[in-house]
Parts: sequence; C-alpha cells; structure tokens
Amino acid sequence: MRATTIHAPFDLRVEDVPDPVVRQPGDAVVRVLRSCVCGSDLWAYRGESARTPGQRIGHEFLGIVEETGAEVGSVRRGDLVVAPFMWSDGVCDYCREGLTTSCEHGGFWGSVGSDGGQGEAVRVPYADGTLVALPAEAASDDRLLAALLTLSDVLGTGHHAALGAGARPGATVAVVGDGAVGLCAVLAARHLGAERIIALGRHETRTDLARRFGATDVVAERGDAAVEAVRALTRGQGAHAVVEAVGTEQSMSTAVNITRDGGAIGFVGVPHGSGTGLDLSVMFDRNIALRGGVAPVRAYIPELLPDVLDGTVDPSPVFDLTVPLEGVPDGYKAMDGRTALKVMVTY
Amino acid sequence: MRATTIHAPFDLRVEDVPDPVVRQPGDAVVRVLRSCVCGSDLWAYRGESARTPGQRIGHEFLGIVEETGAEVGSVRRGDLVVAPFMWSDGVCDYCREGLTTSCEHGGFWGSVGSDGGQGEAVRVPYADGTLVALPAEAASDDRLLAALLTLSDVLGTGHHAALGAGARPGATVAVVGDGAVGLCAVLAARHLGAERIIALGRHETRTDLARRFGATDVVAERGDAAVEAVRALTRGQGAHAVVEAVGTEQSMSTAVNITRDGGAIGFVGVPHGSGTGLDLSVMFDRNIALRGGVAPVRAYIPELLPDVLDGTVDPSPVFDLTVPLEGVPDGYKAMDGRTALKVMVTY
Repeated sequence: MRATTIHAPFDLRVEDVPDPVVRQPGDAVVRVLRSCVCGSDLWAYRGESARTPGQRIGHEFLGIVEETGAEVGSVRRGDLVVAPFMWSDGVCDYCREGLTTSCEHGGFWGSVGSDGGQGEAVRVPYADGTLVALPAEAASDDRLLAALLTLSDVLGTGHHAALGAGARPGATVAVVGDGAVGLCAVLAARHLGAERIIALGRHETRTDLARRFGATDVVAERGDAAVEAVRALTRGQGAHAVVEAVGTEQSMSTAVNITRDGGAIGFVGVPHGSGTGLDLSVMFDRNIALRGGVAPVRAYIPELLPDVLDGTVDPSPVFDLTVPLEGVPDGYKAMDGRTALKVMVTY
Repeated sequence: MRATTIHAPFDLRVEDVPDPVVRQPGDAVVRVLRSCVCGSDLWAYRGESARTPGQRIGHEFLGIVEETGAEVGSVRRGDLVVAPFMWSDGVCDYCREGLTTSCEHGGFWGSVGSDGGQGEAVRVPYADGTLVALPAEAASDDRLLAALLTLSDVLGTGHHAALGAGARPGATVAVVGDGAVGLCAVLAARHLGAERIIALGRHETRTDLARRFGATDVVAERGDAAVEAVRALTRGQGAHAVVEAVGTEQSMSTAVNITRDGGAIGFVGVPHGSGTGLDLSVMFDRNIALRGGVAPVRAYIPELLPDVLDGTVDPSPVFDLTVPLEGVPDGYKAMDGRTALKVMVTY
C-alpha cells in the first residue's frame, strides 16, 4: 500500500510499504477513508521532535474495517469506524476510569513499527478497546465524515481542554491558541454552557471561525497587551476558565496572567521549551489551577458522537484544505506556512 | 502593649509598641489569648522573605474582642473569636465565592502598618468579614483553645491542600511535608474519607503524629527512593491525590513523580526557588493536575468548626512547645532548628 513516511525534517514521502495484516487476535485492519494532519505532526516535520528515518506519520483517521482478528467482537468487516489518536486496550484500570491515554498497552500511531494514519490502511491493535463504530450512512456524507474525523483528536482534545479549564454555564472562557484544537475548545466551551468566550488570535480567517463556533469576543493582541485586553473585558478580573492550546512558554505565561483568581487553565498544547511558562508564585497567590494533558479522546467519543451526528456540534469547518494521499507533503507545507488551518486527506 | 517585631534575619524582639485602637468603623480590637508561629514565618526569620526592620510578625491568633467600631455587627466586646491569617471584607465578589484570600480589601497581619498576631492585641480591619465567634466556654479549655487556634491557618490550609489534591472516599493520598500543615492535611484527608494515607517524613515524632492523625503508611526515604517507595505501595501507580506542603522545587518534583496518572497535586507550600519543580511534559503525558495556593481559611472555618468543637477533628497535638510572649524568639529558634514542630504562645 501507499503511506506517508518521514525521513528527515521537511522530508516527507508517500511511498510503498507492506500491506498491514492481522498479527494478534485483537487486531483489526482498517482501510482509511479520511485522515488529516495535526498541529503536533508539525513538531516532527520541523525536526523539533525526533523521528527515526522512514517512520510512519499521522494519527487521525476513520475508515472501513477490512479484516479482524479472532478475538475482536465490537466491530466487523465493512463497519465504518473512527480511531482515536492512541490505541488502548479498553480493559485496564486506566481505560475503565476513562484515562485511555494512560492505558498499560496503549501506543501511538506512527510510532516505530506501527502504521500511521496518513496511509491507505492501518493495523489497529486492541481493536475492541480502540475503535468506535459509526453509522454506515455517514460514509456517503462528505461534511459529516469531516466532522466525525475530528473525533479522532481535535474535537476531543478541545473538549478535554474546556473541561480542564472548568468551562461551565455562566463562566467566561478564554482560549489561547487559534489552531484547530483552540477552535474546537471554543465549540466545546459553548457546548458546556459558557456565557462568554474570548478567543485570542490575530488571523482573521481563524478568528472568524472562532466567532462562528461561539466566541463572543476576539483579542488580537499578544503578550502583555493581550493580558490587558482580556482584563478590560472582564472587569479587571480575568477569565474563570482558560484554555492553553499552543504549548509554548509564552502562551502558558499568557494563560496564567489572564486567569481569574480561583480559576483554572486547561492545558492541551504539547509542552515545548525548557521552562514551563508557569509563575508558581502568581498561581499560589491567586489559587490558579492547572489541569489537562494528552486528551483521552477515546473515552469522549461516545459522549460527543450524538451531537456530531445530529449536527448540534459541527467542527467540520476546521478543515480548509483537502489533498489526496500523494499530496500530503504539500498539506504539511501549507500548515507549516499557516496558509492552511487543518488539512484533510481523501482516498 | 508588647509585640514581636523583626529587625533583621534572626533578630526578633519583643518590645513596646502603641496600643491598637479602632480607626475605621469596621475595625475591632482583639486582646490575644493564644497565637503561634508558622512555618512560613521562618522564611522571614531566615531572611528568605524580605521584611522592613521593625515590622510586626505572626498571623495566627485567637482572643477576646475588646472594642468594636460603629459598623461592626457580627461580634461584640467580650466575644471569643478566631482570626484567619488574612483579613477580608466578606462582601466582595471573591469573598462571596469563598476565595477570601483574593479579597479586594484583604491583607496580611504583620504587613507594614498592621499589627501582627504575635503581640498582646491586634487591630482587625473588616471585623465582620474576618472574625469568627467561638463558644465562650472554650476560653477555659486549654486543649480546645489549641485546637481552635489551628483554624487560623494550618487546619484550613491542610484542608485546602487535601481538597486540591482531590482526597475523597476510597482514594490513596500521599502527603509531602511533615510540618504542621502536612500533618493537618493527613487529618483532613482522613476526614474526607481517604482509604489510604501515605505520609512522607523521616522525623519519628512527626511521623508518629501522622499515624495518630490517620496515616496508614510512612515513607522515610527522600527523592528517587521516596518515589520508588510510594510506587511500591500503590501497585506501581502512585497516589490519586498528593499534598505538597513544603514549597521547594525538590518537594514539588517528588509530588509530581508520586502522583498517579489522572491524579492531582494540592499545593499549599509557599513556592520558594527559581524554578517550579514541575516537569510539564510528565504532567501532560500523565494528566496530572495542580490545584491549590494560599488557603482561603476564613471560608473553611464555619465548615471545620463543629468537628473541632466536638473533638471529631483534634489538631491540638501539632503544638509541642508553648512559650510566653517574651519567649517568642526562643520559639522561632526551636522551630528553625526543628526541635519543635509548632510553637504556641500563651498570654
């Protein structure tokens, strides 16, 4: 089959690789219908996260089950399924508690020896714990497929951020980061009943989308000026709930400084940098909490799926560029250059 | 009157100062019956927190109301009252939400221009918001007075830490720090229903007290060995809820490494050091939350008081040395040298 591989920074290739097969009785093989490129894929693309030359890449996909191992019971050949960005066994202590990202047998698509999502097919370990079946009719609805694809990462990650930040009815939520996750956090905050949602961002196409997703205010400033602007919107107090969806020291520092005393930061930006961006003295004096991390999206899919299916929540507009599999390298280039927000791959 | 002042590191004096008087209609003057020395007072004593020469010190006291301003309605002359370690107006947004430490008119005893708790009397601003009346008969019960005195800081701070950490029925709680706050966090964790409470500490008199307060296990190791020991006690997973009651980078780092995936650190140790001790990548990968800060003990007093009055919760054994006011400098010396856990001052 054809699949995307990464050989060096900025050197992505789409090449022939062995077809995946069922190796363990809990495996399934999924023929990919839609996949996409994640902001976190760019860390590998730019060489900021190390990769072994030839390693697969991509961790968001949905598709049709092609083959299942003898022990797989929850899905079968022909089912339309979505995969979260990590596989998980579904039965360990952590999976039963909903923290599927800490699964004792969990792993990442594209890790050495595993298939990546940006390929024609994927061997899925622990298929019963990992895959979620979708209604078959969705396969012929392009908009719905795009919306469902976000369940593999960005929608659940935005939801995790909003929950971590404590988004709730009546709250003011601020979102640092105008990427797909930040925008999905806006959607999630609205869905959780936030009264006011302040999106921080300076790219008009993105902030327009933030408004469409439910942002009531947009702050285009950065750094100290952004802090001033958020405070001006909140009687000098800051936001009850702040989403940090970037992962840099500067964005975390901004998040701390726009959080209201007693409030919380929901952090889902993969941490990059030698420091934390956290001023612990400020957090101590003002009782600011920090919650979040890698989102257990598998556990959120059953909860989020009905609203996506009935259109109450429609994250599909986060995809603003679609490429065929052979065009994946161009898709990365567009996201790296910020000419595309999020790139979908069709097959 | 006589009061304790700090002139330089290790230079505490008990000297004559002006008698406090009602200056604002919301003020009260309280004649101190019991006060005490806090672990955080030692930061000033050691010169690690700056003080203006001659500044008062001490922030934990209870006593008898001697005089009230015209607008004071909740307490009157002769009442036995306890003061939390900060004053607060009781009516601002934050006070109404229970975050009295963020009060718009709040302040610290012993700040420049204010009386400290380690003196014969204290002018209390915003007396209605700040003071809590106690049953008059408690004034003749030495053990009960000692227990009630902990409501001014360490019991409420331990409770805040345990809540921040997420102590709850069935949970395993670990407490980093064997000072009075850490020990009160053990009490609080037991009161909140924790199934297992692991106290980290190597001073036998303190760990014996931890066991008396409800600790089920004691870990005497430090650093990596402490992490190993806690993991060995928790099937390799760590504790659901971890209290950080020290405030150094090393103690915070230990706290992160003994927290179970998906768990939380309740931090109440005043942060000291140039870094945070937090490894954000570990916290991200394992979804470890951080909650806490300066404890809004005023808001906790009404909740904790009944259990202290009926003896269900008895923190009085944290006081292992009693001195008269003139002996306050000796009390600091004993706490600084760790020959005393917590020093009470009698009048």
